[in-house]
Amino acid sequence: MSKSEICEHLIALGADFHRRGWALGTSGNFSVVIERAPLRLAITASSVDKSCMTSDHILEVDGRGRMLNGASGKPSAETLLHIAVVQATGASAVLHTHSVWSTILSDYHRGQGGFHIQGYEMLKGLEGVSTHEHEEWLPILENSQDIEALAGEAEALLKEQSNLHGFLIRRHGLYTWGQSLAEAKRHVEILEFLLESVGRRRMMEPIA
Amino acid sequence: MSKSEICEHLIALGADFHRRGWALGTSGNFSVVIERAPLRLAITASSVDKSCMTSDHILEVDGRGRMLNGASGKPSAETLLHIAVVQATGASAVLHTHSVWSTILSDYHRGQGGFHIQGYEMLKGLEGVSTHEHEEWLPILENSQDIEALAGEAEALLKEQSNLHGFLIRRHGLYTWGQSLAEAKRHVEILEFLLESVGRRRMMEPIA
Amino acid sequence: MSKSEICEHLIALGADFHRRGWALGTSGNFSVVIERAPLRLAITASSVDKSCMTSDHILEVDGRGRMLNGASGKPSAETLLHIAVVQATGASAVLHTHSVWSTILSDYHRGQGGFHIQGYEMLKGLEGVSTHEHEEWLPILENSQDIEALAGEAEALLKEQSNLHGFLIRRHGLYTWGQSLAEAKRHVEILEFLLESVGRRRMMEPIA
Amino acid sequence: MSKSEICEHLIALGADFHRRGWALGTSGNFSVVIERAPLRLAITASSVDKSCMTSDHILEVDGRGRMLNGASGKPSAETLLHIAVVQATGASAVLHTHSVWSTILSDYHRGQGGFHIQGYEMLKGLEGVSTHEHEEWLPILENSQDIEALAGEAEALLKEQSNLHGFLIRRHGLYTWGQSLAEAKRHVEILEFLLESVGRRRMMEPIA
Repeated sequence: MSKSEICEHLIALGADFHRRGWALGTSGNFSVVIERAPLRLAITASSVDKSCMTSDHILEVDGRGRMLNGASGKPSAETLLHIAVVQATGASAVLHTHSVWSTILSDYHRGQGGFHIQGYEMLKGLEGVSTHEHEEWLPILENSQDIEALAGEAEALLKEQSNLHGFLIRRHGLYTWGQSLAEAKRHVEILEFLLESVGRRRMMEPIA
Repeated sequence: MSKSEICEHLIALGADFHRRGWALGTSGNFSVVIERAPLRLAITASSVDKSCMTSDHILEVDGRGRMLNGASGKPSAETLLHIAVVQATGASAVLHTHSVWSTILSDYHRGQGGFHIQGYEMLKGLEGVSTHEHEEWLPILENSQDIEALAGEAEALLKEQSNLHGFLIRRHGLYTWGQSLAEAKRHVEILEFLLESVGRRRMMEPIA
Repeated sequence: MSKSEICEHLIALGADFHRRGWALGTSGNFSVVIERAPLRLAITASSVDKSCMTSDHILEVDGRGRMLNGASGKPSAETLLHIAVVQATGASAVLHTHSVWSTILSDYHRGQGGFHIQGYEMLKGLEGVSTHEHEEWLPILENSQDIEALAGEAEALLKEQSNLHGFLIRRHGLYTWGQSLAEAKRHVEILEFLLESVGRRRMMEPIA
Repeated sequence: MSKSEICEHLIALGADFHRRGWALGTSGNFSVVIERAPLRLAITASSVDKSCMTSDHILEVDGRGRMLNGASGKPSAETLLHIAVVQATGASAVLHTHSVWSTILSDYHRGQGGFHIQGYEMLKGLEGVSTHEHEEWLPILENSQDIEALAGEAEALLKEQSNLHGFLIRRHGLYTWGQSLAEAKRHVEILEFLLESVGRRRMMEPIA
């Protein structure tokens, strides 16, 4: 994708996720790899309202999160997390959403360091998964304002467990990625659907 | 309906169902009978994002699910289920949605093989139902990746119980159909409404 | 309002209510008084998809529910209920919505014949209510397919209790009305908001 | 911002909040400071449907809530509350929304006079907050139809606790503000998100 196509897609995706309540306030941030070696990443600027982004809000950074091309603005505070995901997984696009369900489930299961999602047909929307019997592990990282440390933890996690499709940060939402922006967007929809399903299912449990 | 009208309607329906969260990721698939003997079916392609389909994503298959007219793409993995429904019920359109409520209720009631919905005025939106006192049985099939076997089960079920308007596949969503695409769409809305009502009603129960 | 303005407003209102899930399938029906003596009512046709009405779906009936002006189509099956409301209250517009929350609360409270809503600021959106301390009684009628009988019950209820702003039919939704279509639409929004608030509040109760 | 820009922004914001269910009926009211000394405020008119405002619905008032410039219409009944917030906090914009979650949580916690929100990353969207560990106190004022008294209470509260970003009025919704309309809108989204998260999290508690 050209830079202008990346902008066009991220602007539309931001408006859609904002409408669904997955990127309210200035939450959520999105990135797409422009070039892999040396790494150049298009990433949403810090503190942007996702309902009305323009191409000025999509910045370009290098593999250490430094701004390229003299553009103005400040890249997302979570840029290093995006770079960690790209480097550990080889992903071409990284999406971070911040929904109510990811927020509360990442809190509910904090004690177990994550939780399994199994037996749902929707799992097959995750790349490489071919049966609902698949057991997806969704790890939870403790939240921190030390993004460098958090990025290090994420990178270590992703290198250790190469079969993940996403992870949660406690009370902070979901990170997922893909070999293309379309695949990453699909993973957001799949995982947000599964989180809502798991959450609502749990609320019915005691009545069974 | 002509092929281009079918495309136009399925594209609009896909966008609407996607917006409502009934066809996220690449879930959901939709078909319309073009000709009955020999059977020719327009069906959504496999792994398509329902929010932005084009007519290239509506393929034509025969009564055994084989592609017709040399079109490119791959028909929905669940094509045989659509054909089974068409053949067992005589329906002209088959719609499969994958909502949160159908997913969790098909799990909640797995032990009983289905559940009754009774006493709701909304039931009258199902073809041939003229009173809220109607007792609708919504069977649940166990999910499987062997679509041929699953299609066989669905066909046997529908031939045995000719009064059904839909069925669930466990943790996989809803199948419904109609004598026209408009009737099938109405059945989706009716059944999704009833599933949400039954699910939320159940969550209030212990407080009564 | 002229007939064409009535059509324009009801078409927009139908699309909005359908989008919100208050008039799915072919549920919901809406009417506006054209002339009061002798009564002429514009009312939505039976079995119409509210997301895509045209002016052909707005029919004209007299005070006994008979079609006027030789238009084709069939007026809403619940026409007599609309007429009963108009005659008992003097309303200029009657709106019937069919949401999940009105459906389940009308079932939950069936034993008490209705329930009070009190202490909510939103009550002030109901015509003539000037304080949140107002106690609104929302009666529940048992559902029936004998619309003539149901209309009789509604009329008796409304004549007996002249301070009502709406009533529920069990597992069938809400009727409300107003001195104008705008007032009736406001009453729908107010009462649907209150129903959702009351319903969700009740689900938090045992945790308090 | 010019008066016409203020109108344009408030009209768009009203339509968005109405769509989300945060300003149904005629609930919600919004204001922007035009000039600070002497105070001139643009504020939404009383009893307006927020889904379809025009610039006629944005009125101008002075620091005592009196209409300026001979415009017709009646300013929001809660004008004095807006003025109290502007004067106590120095805010440039004040937004009052009326969602289901703010309504029920302001009731649920009435006994404690408010509640803390802590540990959520989303808190960082509140101006001046730089860590999820921040403890935000959301006070609850008892509702009253004596707006002058309520405005006095709000002003006293805001002067006493200068670190607040919003407050609730019991069963009446949320007030928040900002140094700009964009900041105030962001605060609405942040606080409404947090209220929904806190509310749903609480409903999962007993299952843990």
